[in-house]
Amino acid sequence: MSNSTKKRSKKTGLSPGTPLYIGEKKIDNIKISIIDYDKEHLETREVETVDECFPYKDKPSITWINVTGLHEVAIIEQIGTCFGLHPLVLEDIVNTDHRPKMDVSDDYVFIVIKMHFYDPENMAVKSQQISIIFGSNYVLTFHEKLGDVFDPVRSRLNSTTGRLRKAGPDYLAYALMDAVVDNYFKVLESIGEELENMEDDVVANPEPETLQKIHSLKKETILLRKSVWPIREIVSSLEREEIKLVRKSTKIFIRDLYDHIIQVIDTVETYRDIVAGMQDLFLSAISNRMNEVMKVLTIFAALFIPLTFIAGIYGMNFNVEKSPFNMPELNWYFGYPLALGIMAVVGAGMLIYFKRKKWL
Amino acid sequence: MSNSTKKRSKKTGLSPGTPLYIGEKKIDNIKISIIDYDKEHLETREVETVDECFPYKDKPSITWINVTGLHEVAIIEQIGTCFGLHPLVLEDIVNTDHRPKMDVSDDYVFIVIKMHFYDPENMAVKSQQISIIFGSNYVLTFHEKLGDVFDPVRSRLNSTTGRLRKAGPDYLAYALMDAVVDNYFKVLESIGEELENMEDDVVANPEPETLQKIHSLKKETILLRKSVWPIREIVSSLEREEIKLVRKSTKIFIRDLYDHIIQVIDTVETYRDIVAGMQDLFLSAISNRMNEVMKVLTIFAALFIPLTFIAGIYGMNFNVEKSPFNMPELNWYFGYPLALGIMAVVGAGMLIYFKRKKWL
Amino acid sequence: MSNSTKKRSKKTGLSPGTPLYIGEKKIDNIKISIIDYDKEHLETREVETVDECFPYKDKPSITWINVTGLHEVAIIEQIGTCFGLHPLVLEDIVNTDHRPKMDVSDDYVFIVIKMHFYDPENMAVKSQQISIIFGSNYVLTFHEKLGDVFDPVRSRLNSTTGRLRKAGPDYLAYALMDAVVDNYFKVLESIGEELENMEDDVVANPEPETLQKIHSLKKETILLRKSVWPIREIVSSLEREEIKLVRKSTKIFIRDLYDHIIQVIDTVETYRDIVAGMQDLFLSAISNRMNEVMKVLTIFAALFIPLTFIAGIYGMNFNVEKSPFNMPELNWYFGYPLALGIMAVVGAGMLIYFKRKKWL
Amino acid sequence: MSNSTKKRSKKTGLSPGTPLYIGEKKIDNIKISIIDYDKEHLETREVETVDECFPYKDKPSITWINVTGLHEVAIIEQIGTCFGLHPLVLEDIVNTDHRPKMDVSDDYVFIVIKMHFYDPENMAVKSQQISIIFGSNYVLTFHEKLGDVFDPVRSRLNSTTGRLRKAGPDYLAYALMDAVVDNYFKVLESIGEELENMEDDVVANPEPETLQKIHSLKKETILLRKSVWPIREIVSSLEREEIKLVRKSTKIFIRDLYDHIIQVIDTVETYRDIVAGMQDLFLSAISNRMNEVMKVLTIFAALFIPLTFIAGIYGMNFNVEKSPFNMPELNWYFGYPLALGIMAVVGAGMLIYFKRKKWL
Amino acid sequence: MSNSTKKRSKKTGLSPGTPLYIGEKKIDNIKISIIDYDKEHLETREVETVDECFPYKDKPSITWINVTGLHEVAIIEQIGTCFGLHPLVLEDIVNTDHRPKMDVSDDYVFIVIKMHFYDPENMAVKSQQISIIFGSNYVLTFHEKLGDVFDPVRSRLNSTTGRLRKAGPDYLAYALMDAVVDNYFKVLESIGEELENMEDDVVANPEPETLQKIHSLKKETILLRKSVWPIREIVSSLEREEIKLVRKSTKIFIRDLYDHIIQVIDTVETYRDIVAGMQDLFLSAISNRMNEVMKVLTIFAALFIPLTFIAGIYGMNFNVEKSPFNMPELNWYFGYPLALGIMAVVGAGMLIYFKRKKWL
Repeated sequence: MSNSTKKRSKKTGLSPGTPLYIGEKKIDNIKISIIDYDKEHLETREVETVDECFPYKDKPSITWINVTGLHEVAIIEQIGTCFGLHPLVLEDIVNTDHRPKMDVSDDYVFIVIKMHFYDPENMAVKSQQISIIFGSNYVLTFHEKLGDVFDPVRSRLNSTTGRLRKAGPDYLAYALMDAVVDNYFKVLESIGEELENMEDDVVANPEPETLQKIHSLKKETILLRKSVWPIREIVSSLEREEIKLVRKSTKIFIRDLYDHIIQVIDTVETYRDIVAGMQDLFLSAISNRMNEVMKVLTIFAALFIPLTFIAGIYGMNFNVEKSPFNMPELNWYFGYPLALGIMAVVGAGMLIYFKRKKWL
Repeated sequence: MSNSTKKRSKKTGLSPGTPLYIGEKKIDNIKISIIDYDKEHLETREVETVDECFPYKDKPSITWINVTGLHEVAIIEQIGTCFGLHPLVLEDIVNTDHRPKMDVSDDYVFIVIKMHFYDPENMAVKSQQISIIFGSNYVLTFHEKLGDVFDPVRSRLNSTTGRLRKAGPDYLAYALMDAVVDNYFKVLESIGEELENMEDDVVANPEPETLQKIHSLKKETILLRKSVWPIREIVSSLEREEIKLVRKSTKIFIRDLYDHIIQVIDTVETYRDIVAGMQDLFLSAISNRMNEVMKVLTIFAALFIPLTFIAGIYGMNFNVEKSPFNMPELNWYFGYPLALGIMAVVGAGMLIYFKRKKWL
Repeated sequence: MSNSTKKRSKKTGLSPGTPLYIGEKKIDNIKISIIDYDKEHLETREVETVDECFPYKDKPSITWINVTGLHEVAIIEQIGTCFGLHPLVLEDIVNTDHRPKMDVSDDYVFIVIKMHFYDPENMAVKSQQISIIFGSNYVLTFHEKLGDVFDPVRSRLNSTTGRLRKAGPDYLAYALMDAVVDNYFKVLESIGEELENMEDDVVANPEPETLQKIHSLKKETILLRKSVWPIREIVSSLEREEIKLVRKSTKIFIRDLYDHIIQVIDTVETYRDIVAGMQDLFLSAISNRMNEVMKVLTIFAALFIPLTFIAGIYGMNFNVEKSPFNMPELNWYFGYPLALGIMAVVGAGMLIYFKRKKWL
Repeated sequence: MSNSTKKRSKKTGLSPGTPLYIGEKKIDNIKISIIDYDKEHLETREVETVDECFPYKDKPSITWINVTGLHEVAIIEQIGTCFGLHPLVLEDIVNTDHRPKMDVSDDYVFIVIKMHFYDPENMAVKSQQISIIFGSNYVLTFHEKLGDVFDPVRSRLNSTTGRLRKAGPDYLAYALMDAVVDNYFKVLESIGEELENMEDDVVANPEPETLQKIHSLKKETILLRKSVWPIREIVSSLEREEIKLVRKSTKIFIRDLYDHIIQVIDTVETYRDIVAGMQDLFLSAISNRMNEVMKVLTIFAALFIPLTFIAGIYGMNFNVEKSPFNMPELNWYFGYPLALGIMAVVGAGMLIYFKRKKWL
Repeated sequence: MSNSTKKRSKKTGLSPGTPLYIGEKKIDNIKISIIDYDKEHLETREVETVDECFPYKDKPSITWINVTGLHEVAIIEQIGTCFGLHPLVLEDIVNTDHRPKMDVSDDYVFIVIKMHFYDPENMAVKSQQISIIFGSNYVLTFHEKLGDVFDPVRSRLNSTTGRLRKAGPDYLAYALMDAVVDNYFKVLESIGEELENMEDDVVANPEPETLQKIHSLKKETILLRKSVWPIREIVSSLEREEIKLVRKSTKIFIRDLYDHIIQVIDTVETYRDIVAGMQDLFLSAISNRMNEVMKVLTIFAALFIPLTFIAGIYGMNFNVEKSPFNMPELNWYFGYPLALGIMAVVGAGMLIYFKRKKWL
């Protein structure tokens, strides 16, 4: 959890607007892929050098430039210069520890969001920063390494009939954000499943590991929450504010996206409540168990300690011959059976007492 | 609790506006029932094919089309096309995991709410999604399988004297929502009864099962809350906003519905507080019990351990004959009675000590 | 606590605006008392039939009709028809489980509030619903059975010099609400006294009954809170909104009432905090006690168990004659005193150890 | 804490605007002191009868009338009549249990605030109500018995150079409130010191008394909070609202006072958090201690119980001569040393086990 | 934590606007350094006497006067007089216990913020107050002793190409605040690292020291929070309000600063949640441990107490010769092996029982 801030201090003292990549290099080479399309045509290419992007800027068709890998700041700066991005925007793109936010300028809208995905190997939720910039005829996306989150959008772009090919860059940006938000549902599913699996465990087997799992689930919901709430603000602004670059026809879809975000938030909050309840349950289960252990101890101790005491009495070595008062029981004909009988009575009495207390 | 999100991931990657039913098929065939009425006449029929609905669209009388079962998306799409519903609306109807919400368009108002009902067999609260759409002369309702919640509305429609026959589709939609909200009171009753039954149990018998019951009541109130709060927003918007399709005469009833929702919310919040208090009570009761167990153990141990020690001393085998210092007590005339007397004194002392500590 | 909702389900399925009394009959016959007054004259009467009320409607003097008992819905409906009340208002009057609220119409203002009073016999707080309606020349009050809460207002009405006789029905309504709010202070006093009494008990005698008292005080504050907060909204609206029926000269008194309500809320919230703190205190006291019990047990066990072990050693029956290594101590001249001495040293050591640990 | 409401019920049933002193008489005679000043002159006098105040009302110079003692309601009423105060204002002045508030009328501003001071004798925070009224040329202050809180203001009034002599009654009122708020810092200091002293105690000596101290500190912060938050509202209104009697030149000082209040609130909230943290710390320390006690018990029991068992075996009286199988060990040459050896090994084993478990 | 308020009481009774230094003297002499710059030239000097600052006031170039040390109030007052600062501003500068705030006047903007830095020697977070005042051509900064926080800004001022030299005093003030906020990230890093280190410790070694570390981390986050939230308000006001002295070109940078502050707040809140979770974890770990200790005790006690009882029985001295019923087992041929066998069976039974209970 502190990773995020650790990296940040590298930037201390730098002039604002100086882009500095603060993450770890996740891929070897920056990959730039371009999809240029309008209603009739679609062109897809992977470019070698950043210069190949520039001609698309002035084409009337819509161009989506997707940059994977942020460690070569120079390349990002070239793209920034070409599309006229503010230095602070470039700084935010490579500062992968940024809070989700939106900046609206005259020429473009700059959106930073976080994608969360569940890593089944390490059983942990990981997050990545995605920067989306859209102008009048282009969409730029920057991220470290996304996997296949954008693939469904790509395949929908291939179809000439879908709304995507006919709509503007604002709709493409919406579609990309929608793909990211859809991913949150997947993460919530994984967490939901873990929660369900744990629920029975908590009462049946309150192990220390259970506690640590609860704790890590708690931290995951805290982090999810931190990512999702600002996205809500962003989408709400996109819908409500008058932004020139966002067409009216797109707004109904953004409203739908907003509903999904609210759904995600609702579920995260519900999970938080459930995780909190589970921790209470865990603590109560521990207390219950301790109680049970205590009962067993008490039953054994209270049962045998008096009996042992009786046996101890008749193990004393008082000289029977010196006085008729010295342990005459030892010489009784039925002394031993009587002693055993007393023990049996005392023991049975104890057991009845515990039965009444409902400890047995 | 995670069921809801689990289903959702089926949708990942689909183009927005693609209706996909994410629930389980609850009935075999979709049932469509139509009630067409105005002040004078009333016509009720169950239709076989969806085409039979279409003519009603252009009739001046009010038509209520109730669709039970959502698994045949094609049928829903046909109705949607006929009544000019937006694809996103159709998507929300069959996405039975949606948060309660309202969308107002020029031609119709689209409302999604949740109905909760208590399942006495499984002792659990279940929920269902109901979509209500009303336009200028029709009301459409979609749900998976409701039971008899709408029956009171149907019977009131049969009476020619009631307000329902004279009022518009907005009033019918109100009446349906009112029926759903009335059902919340029933659910709250069941929870309230369980709470009352448990209250005495918690202190008297703090069993692990009690704890699990508390936990499940807690989860139920969390889920109820999640459903009810958005309904409040919906009803509030219906009342406050200027919606063309909602007549002024209906607003006073919507205001009344709003009061009921607030009452439901108030009760849910109160139950939340009471459930939380009950959990604290449970934990305290457990602690109390542990204390009691500890006391019994301590009394037995502290009473008999010293006595056993005394018995142990006179069970030692020091050679009495070798020295006058070696356990002369064993040869005393009143040795044994004296030893028993000392034990009695020590034991009585212990008991007095515990009496003073109020442990007895 | 669930009583309130239980009754509610009787209403399920009824058409809105159908008055249905959901409480228990608290008195045999509905009592209607009328006070008709202006600056000069005052007339007080108990009427037999509801018809006697009707003539007052058109008199210019101010008429206060107080209805005690709500179980005969027909009578309430007749009064409602006479004074032109909306059916939903009548429904709310007899639905004694309503949340405090205010409805303003052109002809009258309808206010529902709750009165709480402390029942010293059952040591519990009970509540009642009071409906107050005031128009241009009348005030109607409906309740189940109030006791003497309105008596001070009645006696002030008898005096010709007070403001009450000169002011309008809005001022009378204010005076009645003021009397109800004054009663809250009485209830808070009772709770405050109980809190003070308990405070010392909690630490000195953390008994299970204490816990249940805390729990019931908690529930009482939850219920009080639920009643008082909406009253605040009502009074705030009365003061701030432009309501034709509320004169400007009355507003300064309503502002004063608002201050009192805030005072009640403040105290309720403070009590909530104090009750919560008391519960923490109780749990800590229980823990403290357990600690003390544990210490006693540990001291006894740790003191005597080693001593008993030593006694056990010299109780062994190894054959002294077979070998000089076999328990030669038994034949020593000072064997026994030595053994006792060792025991004394070990015991004293233990005691010193416990002293150092501050357990003694 | 319930004292405040207890007194209140004396008022039940009284007509609003009836002043009734609800506190205890704190001084014998009401003292009235008058300071009349303008830029050039200053007159200070203690008056015998209330009539002596009246002439000052019409003087152009600023008059500050300070009334100490509220039990003679008649005197307060005379002053009220002279300065044209509303009856509700008089009621609030003597109702010493009022929540801090401000009422602005055309002729004067009426402010009620609470002063808290630390009583070192009883180690408790006490509070008093101060009413401040300022008009165009006068300031009235009413309280029960203040001590020397206003002394610094009095001495600053004596200096002809200070701003106080040149500014209006609004500035004097500000200066008095500032003196009261400065006193809050003193109280916070005392609490802060107690908190610091306790911090080490909590972990080192988690005694029941510590718990009660924490509880009383908690209650004090709750009460402080209750007093300070409304003062914030008052000062905020004084600064923001357009009040004719508050000059623009005074507003910058009121803004400064506002900053101080925020500082007080901030500190109170921080103390609340710290007290809450301390309680958690206390509970954890108790648990820790219990753990330690348990460990000592377990070590002793687990160490000596097996050893005692071994000793018990060789204390059995089986007849060695009847059979070679009957306790042949008793006749072994090294029987006793062997038995002791086994005990030593078992004991050492236990100790190593506990060492590994880090219990030693 | 109470240090801050302790100092405050020195001020009680002083006329507002009287500057009084309430801190401890941290350096011997006040140091005043001046940087005077415009696009072309840059002059840096340390001045001996405060008079040397005055000429810069009327120069058109931008002058940054940095005052280190606040204990000589006279010097601060001279600067204040020269630059026309309000007495309340001077009071706030030397009142080093002030809450972060901003005052905007016509001629200058006065900002008070807190800098936090991590003191690795004492492993504690310390804070300092920084006052920043900027006018049309100057920036004044006052603090006790800052270290090298402003150094990056100084070195950026040396470069002629940077934005800093071209922009106005508002941008310099922004740059200084940015430097301070960057420092918060460093502090958060230290806390984040400590949190990570502790996380494993909490479960593995729930020592009392861990608890105290958690407690101090909690207090640090409380204090950080108290400092950061008001800075958010300040920066938000700087961005949103129309302040003459803040140019439009600077606002985009202030917006960026705002994002950073939000990031700091987010992280602080997350840490708060994580620290709270850690405390719960600690308590659970303690409970878990206690449970384990209890189990060990119970296993030993329940295993050996019955065995010791059996041994005790055959240690009784009933006279075998007096009666065939008196302990005939002692004379059996296989008496002793049988007794041992019974013990082994009982012991094994206990162990199987504990295995089933999963205590082993």
